[in-house]
Amino acid sequence: MVFFMNIGYKTFAIIGGDKRQLYCARSLANDGFEVVLGGFDKVISMHGVRLMDAFKAAQSAEVIILPLPSVDKDGNIPAYFSDKSLSLKELSPFISGKRVFCSMKDKVLLSEPSLNSSLLSDYYAREDFVLSNAYVTAEGAVKIAMERFEGTLNGARILVCGFGRIGKALTRLLSGFSPELTVSARKSEDLAAIRMWGAKAVRTDELYNEQGFDVIFSTVPALIFRPELLAKIANDAVLIDLASMPGSVDFEAADRLEIDYIHALSLPGKASPKTAGEIIKDTIYTILEEEQR
Amino acid sequence: MVFFMNIGYKTFAIIGGDKRQLYCARSLANDGFEVVLGGFDKVISMHGVRLMDAFKAAQSAEVIILPLPSVDKDGNIPAYFSDKSLSLKELSPFISGKRVFCSMKDKVLLSEPSLNSSLLSDYYAREDFVLSNAYVTAEGAVKIAMERFEGTLNGARILVCGFGRIGKALTRLLSGFSPELTVSARKSEDLAAIRMWGAKAVRTDELYNEQGFDVIFSTVPALIFRPELLAKIANDAVLIDLASMPGSVDFEAADRLEIDYIHALSLPGKASPKTAGEIIKDTIYTILEEEQR
Amino acid sequence: MVFFMNIGYKTFAIIGGDKRQLYCARSLANDGFEVVLGGFDKVISMHGVRLMDAFKAAQSAEVIILPLPSVDKDGNIPAYFSDKSLSLKELSPFISGKRVFCSMKDKVLLSEPSLNSSLLSDYYAREDFVLSNAYVTAEGAVKIAMERFEGTLNGARILVCGFGRIGKALTRLLSGFSPELTVSARKSEDLAAIRMWGAKAVRTDELYNEQGFDVIFSTVPALIFRPELLAKIANDAVLIDLASMPGSVDFEAADRLEIDYIHALSLPGKASPKTAGEIIKDTIYTILEEEQR
Amino acid sequence: MVFFMNIGYKTFAIIGGDKRQLYCARSLANDGFEVVLGGFDKVISMHGVRLMDAFKAAQSAEVIILPLPSVDKDGNIPAYFSDKSLSLKELSPFISGKRVFCSMKDKVLLSEPSLNSSLLSDYYAREDFVLSNAYVTAEGAVKIAMERFEGTLNGARILVCGFGRIGKALTRLLSGFSPELTVSARKSEDLAAIRMWGAKAVRTDELYNEQGFDVIFSTVPALIFRPELLAKIANDAVLIDLASMPGSVDFEAADRLEIDYIHALSLPGKASPKTAGEIIKDTIYTILEEEQR
Repeated sequence: MVFFMNIGYKTFAIIGGDKRQLYCARSLANDGFEVVLGGFDKVISMHGVRLMDAFKAAQSAEVIILPLPSVDKDGNIPAYFSDKSLSLKELSPFISGKRVFCSMKDKVLLSEPSLNSSLLSDYYAREDFVLSNAYVTAEGAVKIAMERFEGTLNGARILVCGFGRIGKALTRLLSGFSPELTVSARKSEDLAAIRMWGAKAVRTDELYNEQGFDVIFSTVPALIFRPELLAKIANDAVLIDLASMPGSVDFEAADRLEIDYIHALSLPGKASPKTAGEIIKDTIYTILEEEQR
Repeated sequence: MVFFMNIGYKTFAIIGGDKRQLYCARSLANDGFEVVLGGFDKVISMHGVRLMDAFKAAQSAEVIILPLPSVDKDGNIPAYFSDKSLSLKELSPFISGKRVFCSMKDKVLLSEPSLNSSLLSDYYAREDFVLSNAYVTAEGAVKIAMERFEGTLNGARILVCGFGRIGKALTRLLSGFSPELTVSARKSEDLAAIRMWGAKAVRTDELYNEQGFDVIFSTVPALIFRPELLAKIANDAVLIDLASMPGSVDFEAADRLEIDYIHALSLPGKASPKTAGEIIKDTIYTILEEEQR
Repeated sequence: MVFFMNIGYKTFAIIGGDKRQLYCARSLANDGFEVVLGGFDKVISMHGVRLMDAFKAAQSAEVIILPLPSVDKDGNIPAYFSDKSLSLKELSPFISGKRVFCSMKDKVLLSEPSLNSSLLSDYYAREDFVLSNAYVTAEGAVKIAMERFEGTLNGARILVCGFGRIGKALTRLLSGFSPELTVSARKSEDLAAIRMWGAKAVRTDELYNEQGFDVIFSTVPALIFRPELLAKIANDAVLIDLASMPGSVDFEAADRLEIDYIHALSLPGKASPKTAGEIIKDTIYTILEEEQR
Repeated sequence: MVFFMNIGYKTFAIIGGDKRQLYCARSLANDGFEVVLGGFDKVISMHGVRLMDAFKAAQSAEVIILPLPSVDKDGNIPAYFSDKSLSLKELSPFISGKRVFCSMKDKVLLSEPSLNSSLLSDYYAREDFVLSNAYVTAEGAVKIAMERFEGTLNGARILVCGFGRIGKALTRLLSGFSPELTVSARKSEDLAAIRMWGAKAVRTDELYNEQGFDVIFSTVPALIFRPELLAKIANDAVLIDLASMPGSVDFEAADRLEIDYIHALSLPGKASPKTAGEIIKDTIYTILEEEQR
C-alpha cells in the first residue's frame, strides 16, 4: 500500500542511528516519501532509499531525523553503521533552518545552540512515543523470559513488580499465557485495576510476604530488590530488571545468591528494531498532523 | 471463609440505601464483623445481620456507613427499602463522634455542619472506588448491548467513543468477544494504546468519517452525538450513552432519526448491586488500612 | 458492501420461519441476491426484499430456504409471522425440482416423500452450522448470567459443566471477564486443555467436592444435577441449563431447594436472531461453494 | 506444597533421558515421592533425588519411567547426561515385572519382547499428553518468532497454517498479542471457529491468494509450501515449520528464495524441558488414577 500522506513535506533525511533508523527509512519509503540515509557507510544498498554522505543527505531533504539518542557526550551523532564519527557541530549548518526531529532536545540544543529551537521537535518527549515503546519493551521482556525460563509461561508463577506503562503492558500480554500472575503496585486504584485483570494484587512494600515465583519482571525505577527481598522471593526465579540505570536490583546480592538475573535495557531497539523504527515514524507523522490542525 | 480483619473496629451500622447496602452488609458479616442495618423497614430478615430502627442502629455501632448519595436535596438519607423518610439532621446526634463513611462529603457537611469533618471519610471520592465502578459500568453496558442488539457481539461492528476509565474497561471487555472494534479518543497516546489493543483507533473529532456500526458505546461527558454525526454513523446502531447527565447524545435528534438509543445511568447499582456493594466495603477497608500504616 | 457471489444462483425464496429468516433474507439481499419472503403476512415491508404469498414466492425463486425446524408434527412449515398454516404438502409441488435448503432432512422427507432427496440439503446437519450456533448459544448464556446474577462476572465464581462445543465457547468467552473459573469434563485431554486456559479443571463425576459458585452453566446432555449435587454446589448459584430437553437438572429438586434455575433452550434464535440468520446464510454459501470445487 | 498422592506407589526410578527427565524427577520429589535417577552420570547432585547406576536405580523402585524416545535404533535407552550407552536388553531383567512407563510401546516391545506388555504403559500415546505438548510446542514457536522477527508480534501480519492441536494453541496464544492474524484450515467448521476467534479464515488450498506476511507458522504434516506458494506469500516472512519430518516446506526452494526458514522440531524438550517433564509426570499420575477408578 503506497500512498502519499499530506503532511506538508516530501523528502526525509535520516542521519545516524542503528537498525531502528533503517526500518524507519524503509517505512517512510513504503509510504511514498523520498528518503535518504546519511551516516550508514556500512550499508551497501537498501531498496527504495538512497545512501549518501551525511552532509549531502542533510542538504537534499526538507525534514531531518536524528537518532535516539541524537547526540553523545562528545558532541557526535551516534552512527552504528559507520566507522567515521559524525559531529553534530559540523552537520549543524546543513540542517539549520530545516525541520528537525530529534530525541532529548535539551541536550541537542546544549550541544549545538545555533539550531533553531522552534524548528526542532522532540519525538522522544511525546507521550504516544513513550507509551508505544513501553509496549515494545514488554514484548521484549516476555521474549527474554521465554528464553531464560525452562518452563512455559502458561501455568508459571509470575510476578510483575510495578503497574506503570510497562507493568500494564506486561499484565495484558502475560494474561494471554494464563500464568499464575501476581502484580504489585503502590496505589490503591492500581491494586483495584490489577484485581479486575484477574491477577493477584500485592502492595509493592508487602512483596516480602510472597514466594515461589518462576519469573519476576521488575519495572520500578527504584531499588526494590534488596538482599532480603531477593532471598525471600527470587530464589528460584528468573529475574528480569527493566528499570533504567542503575536498575531496581542489588545486583551484587543477586550474584551472591546465584539468582538468574538480567538487566534488560533498551529493549525496543534490541528486540524489535522494526517496530521501534516505525514508532519513530508514526510519532513524526502525528506531530506534523497535529501542527496542521 | 470467615476471618477477622484487623482494621480497628468490630461493629458497623449501615443506614439507608438500596440493594448495594444490603450486599455491603452481607459481605461485612461474612468477614466476621457485627453488622446492623437501619432504615430497611421493608426487609424482614437477613442472615447474619440485625435489622433495627435507624437511630438504634447508629447508636449500637462504631462505624456508620451512609449510602450513595448520602443525602438528598431535602436533607434526607435515601432509603429505598423504607417508606419513612430518614432525616440526616435527626440522625446526626446518633452518629456524631463516630467514624462515618459517606459519599459526597461536601454535601453531607453542607446539610449537617455539626458532623465532625475529620471523622468523615468519603469513599466516593477515592480513585480506587471510581475505577472499580468504571469496570462495573462497562460490564453493565455490555449486558445492555447484548439485550438490545439482535446479533452476537462476536463479529459485530462496535464503536467505543472515549478512552477514559470506562472506555478502557469496555475495550478490554469487548476484546474477549472478538468484534470489529473501533475506539475513539482525543489524545495521541490513547490512540497509540488503542492500536496496541488491536482495535481501530479514530480521533473523536473525525468520527464522521466512520459508518456502519451495530453498537455504539459513548463514554464522553460532552455533546458528541449531534444530529449530523447521529445521521452519519448511528443509523442502524444500538446507541448506549454512558455519560452522566445531560449525556453525550442529542436525544431529540436520536428520536427523530429513530435511533435505538438508551441513556444508561447508575449502572453499577442497577446491573451489579452485589459487586457495587462489595466495592464500597473494599474501599472502606482500604481507607482504614491506609490509616494504620 | 454489495457484491455478487458466484454460487450459481441468483434468486432465493425464504418460506416460513421467524426473525432468523428475516435476518437471513436481509443478509442475502445485502450480498446482491434477489430475495422473496413467503409466509410472513404480518411483516408489512422490508427494505430490499419482496414479500409474497408462499406459493408464488416458491415459484419465483431458484433456491428455497426452509426454516428451523422445517416441518412440525402436523406437516406444517412453522411460520411465526403468519396466522395462516403453511402446509409442506401443499407447497411441495411449487418447490419440487428446485434447490432446497432445510433442517432435519429426514423429517422433511418423511413428511413429504415426493421431494427429491438429492436436491435437498440439510444445513442443520453441518458441523460448521452446529459449531457456529454453539458459540451463539454461549453468548446468549452469558447474557442470561449477566441478567440473573447481581454481581459482575468479573471476579465471580463460575462453573462451566462440560467441555464440548458450548463448554469450550463459554470457557473462552468467560475468560475475558477474569472470573474464578472452574470447568468440568470427563476426558483427561479436556482436563489438560482446561488447565491451559488457566481455569480450574475438575472431573464432572467429582463435582460434589466443589462449592461456593455464583453462576453455573450446564452443557452436558445428561442428568448431572441430581438433588445431592444441587444441594452441595448450587445453593447460592444462578444455574443455567443449556442441555436440550429434558435438560441436565432435576428441576423439581431445584425448585424445592429454591435454586435460581433456568432452562435456556433455543438461545440462538431468541438471543441473537440476526447472527443465527446469518449463520444459515453462511452455511448455505459454504455448501454451494463446496459443490463447485 | 509437599503432599502424598494416593496412586498406589511410593518409589520412582527415572532411567535415561534429558533435561525433561530431570524436571520430571524434581517434580515427583516435590510431590513427596522417593525418586532415583539412573543413567545421569554427568549430573553430580540434585536436591531431593538420589543418583545411581541405572541397574541399581531400576532395582530399587516400584515404578520405572523410560524417556522419550524410550529406545533408539541400536536398542539403547537414550541418555543425554551419560557417556555410557544404556542397553534396554541389559536393563530388562531389572525392570521386568515392575510398572513401567515408556513412550512408543510398540518399539519397546519389538526391541525387548520379554517385557510384560500389560505392565507397560505408553504415556506418549495418550491424548492428554499429546494435547499438552501441542500447547508447549506453540509457546516454543512463539518464542522463535519473537527471536527471528525484528518487529513486535503486536500488529504483525501473521499466518497460522493448519488448525489442528498446535494451530488451535497458536491461534489462542497469538490473539493475546493482537496481531493481524490469518489462520488457514481445510474443514468448514474450522473456518467458522477461526472467524469466531476474530482471525481471518482462509482455506489452506487458497493460500496463494494471500500475501504480505511477517511471520508464518506451518503446522500441517504435508508438503504445503511448494515453490510457487513460497514465492507468493513467504517472501519477506519468517517461516517456522512445525511439521514433523520431512516438514511442510520445500526447503531447497526456501533456500533459493532466501526465505528466513526454520524447521523447528522437538520444541517441548528444547524450549520448555521443565513443563515437558511435568507433563510426563502428570500423564503418569492420570494413568494411575484412572486405573484406580
